[in-house]
Amino acid sequence: MANKRKIYNLADPSLDNYNLLLNEVIFHNANGYIGIRYDFEEGYPEGYEITRSQYINGFYDYTEIKHAERLYGVPDRKQTMLDVADTQEIKLFIDGEQFSMFSGKLLEFDIYLDMDRGVTVREVKWRSPLGKEIALKITRMASLHQLPLFLIEYEIDPLEFRGEIIIESAHDGNVCNFADPDDPRTADKCDQYIIPVSCEIKDGASYITSETSKSGLEVCSCVKNVLSQKNQTEFLLNNNKTTCIMRTKASSERKIKLVKYAILCDSIRYPDCSLTAREEMNKALSVSVSELHRKHEGCLRTYWKNCYVDIDGDDELAQAVIFNMYQLNQSASKDIYGNIAPKGLSGDGYEGQYFWDSEMFIQPFFTITNPAISKTLIESRHLQLDHARENAKIMGHKCGALYPWRTITGEECSGYYPAGSAQYHINGDIAYSIIAYYLATKDIGFIAEKGAEIIFETARLWMDTGNFYRGEFHINDVTGPDEYTCVVNDNYYTNALAQYHLRWAVKFYSMLKETGMLDPVAKKIKFRKAEIRGFIKAAEAMHLPYDPETKINPQDDSFMRKKEWDIAGIPKENFPLLLHYHPLHLYRHRICKQADTVMAYFILEDTQSEETMHNSFLYYEKVTTHDSSLSQPVFSIVAARLGMEEKAYRYFGDSAKLDLLNLYNNTEDGIHTANMAGTFLTIVYGFGGFRLKEQGISFDPMLPSKWNAYDFKILYENSRIKVYVTETECVFSLEKGKSKMITVYGKPYRLKKRLVIKRSSGEIE
Amino acid sequence: MANKRKIYNLADPSLDNYNLLLNEVIFHNANGYIGIRYDFEEGYPEGYEITRSQYINGFYDYTEIKHAERLYGVPDRKQTMLDVADTQEIKLFIDGEQFSMFSGKLLEFDIYLDMDRGVTVREVKWRSPLGKEIALKITRMASLHQLPLFLIEYEIDPLEFRGEIIIESAHDGNVCNFADPDDPRTADKCDQYIIPVSCEIKDGASYITSETSKSGLEVCSCVKNVLSQKNQTEFLLNNNKTTCIMRTKASSERKIKLVKYAILCDSIRYPDCSLTAREEMNKALSVSVSELHRKHEGCLRTYWKNCYVDIDGDDELAQAVIFNMYQLNQSASKDIYGNIAPKGLSGDGYEGQYFWDSEMFIQPFFTITNPAISKTLIESRHLQLDHARENAKIMGHKCGALYPWRTITGEECSGYYPAGSAQYHINGDIAYSIIAYYLATKDIGFIAEKGAEIIFETARLWMDTGNFYRGEFHINDVTGPDEYTCVVNDNYYTNALAQYHLRWAVKFYSMLKETGMLDPVAKKIKFRKAEIRGFIKAAEAMHLPYDPETKINPQDDSFMRKKEWDIAGIPKENFPLLLHYHPLHLYRHRICKQADTVMAYFILEDTQSEETMHNSFLYYEKVTTHDSSLSQPVFSIVAARLGMEEKAYRYFGDSAKLDLLNLYNNTEDGIHTANMAGTFLTIVYGFGGFRLKEQGISFDPMLPSKWNAYDFKILYENSRIKVYVTETECVFSLEKGKSKMITVYGKPYRLKKRLVIKRSSGEIE
Repeated sequence: MANKRKIYNLADPSLDNYNLLLNEVIFHNANGYIGIRYDFEEGYPEGYEITRSQYINGFYDYTEIKHAERLYGVPDRKQTMLDVADTQEIKLFIDGEQFSMFSGKLLEFDIYLDMDRGVTVREVKWRSPLGKEIALKITRMASLHQLPLFLIEYEIDPLEFRGEIIIESAHDGNVCNFADPDDPRTADKCDQYIIPVSCEIKDGASYITSETSKSGLEVCSCVKNVLSQKNQTEFLLNNNKTTCIMRTKASSERKIKLVKYAILCDSIRYPDCSLTAREEMNKALSVSVSELHRKHEGCLRTYWKNCYVDIDGDDELAQAVIFNMYQLNQSASKDIYGNIAPKGLSGDGYEGQYFWDSEMFIQPFFTITNPAISKTLIESRHLQLDHARENAKIMGHKCGALYPWRTITGEECSGYYPAGSAQYHINGDIAYSIIAYYLATKDIGFIAEKGAEIIFETARLWMDTGNFYRGEFHINDVTGPDEYTCVVNDNYYTNALAQYHLRWAVKFYSMLKETGMLDPVAKKIKFRKAEIRGFIKAAEAMHLPYDPETKINPQDDSFMRKKEWDIAGIPKENFPLLLHYHPLHLYRHRICKQADTVMAYFILEDTQSEETMHNSFLYYEKVTTHDSSLSQPVFSIVAARLGMEEKAYRYFGDSAKLDLLNLYNNTEDGIHTANMAGTFLTIVYGFGGFRLKEQGISFDPMLPSKWNAYDFKILYENSRIKVYVTETECVFSLEKGKSKMITVYGKPYRLKKRLVIKRSSGEIE
Repeated sequence: MANKRKIYNLADPSLDNYNLLLNEVIFHNANGYIGIRYDFEEGYPEGYEITRSQYINGFYDYTEIKHAERLYGVPDRKQTMLDVADTQEIKLFIDGEQFSMFSGKLLEFDIYLDMDRGVTVREVKWRSPLGKEIALKITRMASLHQLPLFLIEYEIDPLEFRGEIIIESAHDGNVCNFADPDDPRTADKCDQYIIPVSCEIKDGASYITSETSKSGLEVCSCVKNVLSQKNQTEFLLNNNKTTCIMRTKASSERKIKLVKYAILCDSIRYPDCSLTAREEMNKALSVSVSELHRKHEGCLRTYWKNCYVDIDGDDELAQAVIFNMYQLNQSASKDIYGNIAPKGLSGDGYEGQYFWDSEMFIQPFFTITNPAISKTLIESRHLQLDHARENAKIMGHKCGALYPWRTITGEECSGYYPAGSAQYHINGDIAYSIIAYYLATKDIGFIAEKGAEIIFETARLWMDTGNFYRGEFHINDVTGPDEYTCVVNDNYYTNALAQYHLRWAVKFYSMLKETGMLDPVAKKIKFRKAEIRGFIKAAEAMHLPYDPETKINPQDDSFMRKKEWDIAGIPKENFPLLLHYHPLHLYRHRICKQADTVMAYFILEDTQSEETMHNSFLYYEKVTTHDSSLSQPVFSIVAARLGMEEKAYRYFGDSAKLDLLNLYNNTEDGIHTANMAGTFLTIVYGFGGFRLKEQGISFDPMLPSKWNAYDFKILYENSRIKVYVTETECVFSLEKGKSKMITVYGKPYRLKKRLVIKRSSGEIE
């Protein structure tokens, strides 16, 4: 492979509509604040269905949730991430002929993503219908250094052509969200959510300010076009769309370059977003384009320092993992007003809302590579805490906080509560991510400041949700991660996580008390010592389903008695099952959409015996359809944990290439961020056997037989450790920070600079 | 009490808006085919909100069901009973002054329902603003003899007035269904479902024909006005409304009488409904008005012969029970194209759809008083059988039929499946009603013809729904009658009923085989003998939840472990709970909306020991809110069954007067037909201790201490038995038919003509 750090369009260079939709996602540009789907600036022929959107993380409007029957407390509105003004359009005319990928002849054509430079590039050599030839190189970047900035460099190489060149670069405020009434995972109708309130040209830049229809927010976009050579410029303003028309001449071999600066600012971050947009534009214009790139690349370099995976023996896989880590950085909010949506900033899928994917798949990646991002994500949950308290009240709870299953700012946005609001494990997931952040950083100050408030309030909710019955503590009528059995009693995952959560609430209580940091949070939430005693009692008495006959942990208290359903006998076209069977039919069968109990074994492996986990794993393998992209990575990790190397590798399979190969046939809706993080976790937690616990960190590396070697890096208490695993040895190098105790194959070592351990004997070399 | 068989408006004669809405229901006219809410013909002042509707049983259109998230198999349209053309309007002008109840002075005013004549009458003595006085008597009837006919007799007594009289009698095709977006029990928006396609005057009668917007049905209404004295008649036609203007003079003491004939015909019953409407109009006009009344009263007399309850010592209660029985006759379809809606034909509540109320509350009343009506209702379910088969497929079943939870013609109309389609007990309810019909009539021919096909197909569904697990047969993920715990495993009511259902399927199979009537049905549905073996095995192994600690039948397998909730501590304004708590909050608590296990004890008392029923009854008393009007009658019956006289009487309480006293604050949406039947059942099954079983019929009468005596009649195998219970004795009289064996207080007797049994000793007098 020429370069693992570039992704090319070569696999399928065709211009068929569906492939272009995939390109919109694979080559989208984002920086955690803004995201721009990858489109041909000049547009597409009539009849092409293209999404062509630009987003701001966490910038939303309200939209109605319709209900067949009104139920108390089920929300009647939801938050939807908005498509904001289109700043992509650039039309090119050479001697009156309009450039298009679909006319004339494409002599050369490529698109690629350069993951070191952080840009997507389209290179085209085109012969017009009348026989003129030009070459184009179009470079796009969403700046990691200046978050509101999206840049397009449009370079025209006239080749042999000499004549008039007209460039029409547009900025369009009339946009509406993508919708598909037939897919429950997208919005169901195309509404215009942002209404332009002003559209003007100032200092040669166009400004469009829009208001949202219901949420009372504002967004300003600003576009400035700078052409490398003299030209006649004219502006057209029409119905909230501005077009900057530049006329010039190709009179020599000199290339002509347009730099199109676009700034997107929303009023959540920038109360006076028009003013900020102007300042940001001036800031961008005040330095050279190459300086903008240098700064952007600097941010990326820092990122790559800690996010590192390589595989000797499978370049394609290594490339896929790098691609995934790149996308995670593109998707993760860098401020507390956003989080990470399941589709990042690459599509409208799931309406840009945030789910447990953040805490249970994506944060574990950031927590051990870039904990500052995890901290920001936790802070964004802290910002939602008042909403979570309100949500708990709506759901009938007397105290505590219940995070919504899907949300942007903290309001519950699920309309179908059995596979939505009933997923109370979200509270445990958020607590788990805070505990993991603490374990990786020992940042007790942050726990005192924000983490404990979340942990205590959400722990309280378990106490108000569950109840003691005949000596045990039960949590009834909740839904676990597996949405093929909803509203069940004593979901194993939920109960095990609640137990862990309650125990850590007790630990943090003691730690904060000992360090004198308890008072502010305890006072704020009127936390009483008696509650801690309740936490201890409930955690001790927590009912964890166990079936003595099969010696497994049933997913919930009624799971074993459900009907069997032979997965092998289900016609292939009937997957995913949720699109082909009534919920009751699914609920009535012993069948799982995704890892649920197996997920609990991944995150809470010490709760059960090896034997039980082993039995259960084999059991759940048979009844899981993996209709969720979150499932297979977890099965892979747990297979590795249980010593099933071959299975671990098989479950890993192509999951790293889910979006690159469009394995779920829905990449056009956006990337699968949780799955992307999952592939990293599979390598580090699965094959690397990495664990992050109260006792410290440990490794238990295995090497898939098809690989020669692999390496990865983790950051632990600010020490960067590189792990290199070959057939014969594991090499641990301390790249940065203080020496650390690490456990390898069950034995403790002090890692000072480098440690080489023989895999066969577990001895130091 | 002057007359128990008349209901007067005297309780609250005020003309406030809400009271008038109640009058629309209490005094509505219906005959099982058409229903007309009671309205002042002349209308109301501006600002009054009045429903003013006319319905045809089972005449529907489709309307969209909206969903927050699309789920496979959950219907996206439902059937709604339609409001058809308004034929009520009559405006009266005397010397230019318009008669209105809200102007001038009401010197006398009354409305009453005469339950022997089957009419509602309004009597008014009115002084106009200018001081003229007239008296009006307006009589309304929906003919039981000629079902499409609704008659208004509008009699004007001029008293001292002499002058011009103008009557404007209208017929309006522009109607739309009542809607209340805030109430989940009514439609949520006012749509015009029927679109007039023709409006014309033929032979002095106006005809309006309309088509439904989506269901492809047609309805024709025809109105003819006949005035008792010479007049100038003129017709106005405007926008699908016709007005017949009659000018005449009050020149003597002679009363002036308008007879307004209205015919309503739909295309479900009458494919050429316009033609039929014409024929029906001619038929009505061909005889005198008094003859129309005579025939109508004849039908009523026949009805009252078998439907008889009287209470010595509580006239008001007796009147209420008579009122209820009257309404049941008004509500019950007399053909197989309709059934009985929860609100009968008196309102839009529940959109005129049919539920289990028919089979489990209303049919038990008809089955032992008027089995021909029960038979018709069962036939209407037979007509839906193909839909039920299709519904089973949609729900994922490989065979059998699953009746929809709510429907008009057989398509599932519930949008919220946990409290809708999940109520699989509907299959058992329908089977139960067929078995009861058989027990009361021994009509095995009907079983062979239609009953068995339903019974077998629905029995098959239990086999495909449930599964064996560790030796027992379980039915998982269904909802019992109690909607405060939805989608549960092994609901006691459902399982006990399924067991009974399967056993009767086996019995009918044998009976039909023995009588040589099996083949046609067995061939039609490809019924195999092996299935019968399966039925037997499943029935034997049926899991019926039992808790050895409390010695009760838990409502389902997880009921006992749910949280307790002290009903007494819930603020009164929070009832019904479903309007004030999130479903998950309700599901998580050991609390019941209505009788569920207790209902099973009513219908299947032989399934459990006396002790278990006793314990359970006391248990469920504490956790039931009776938020459904179906609940208290059942508690009353079972209390009586268990010898708790005082409680039986207390639960009976005012339930017979639910609508007369508007106890549920929603009588304006329509009468509560199931509750009405429930009051009859409470007297007969509860206090009378009547049972209808394979072994025959039995009585176990008690006398509430506040009553002197009571009597009722039942029809059993075409023998009419009158039962009279006093403090000291029970008197059984055979009014009609052959002598019968009856069991009284556990002892068998042959009832020839009259049998008097001492209540103290159980001896024959």
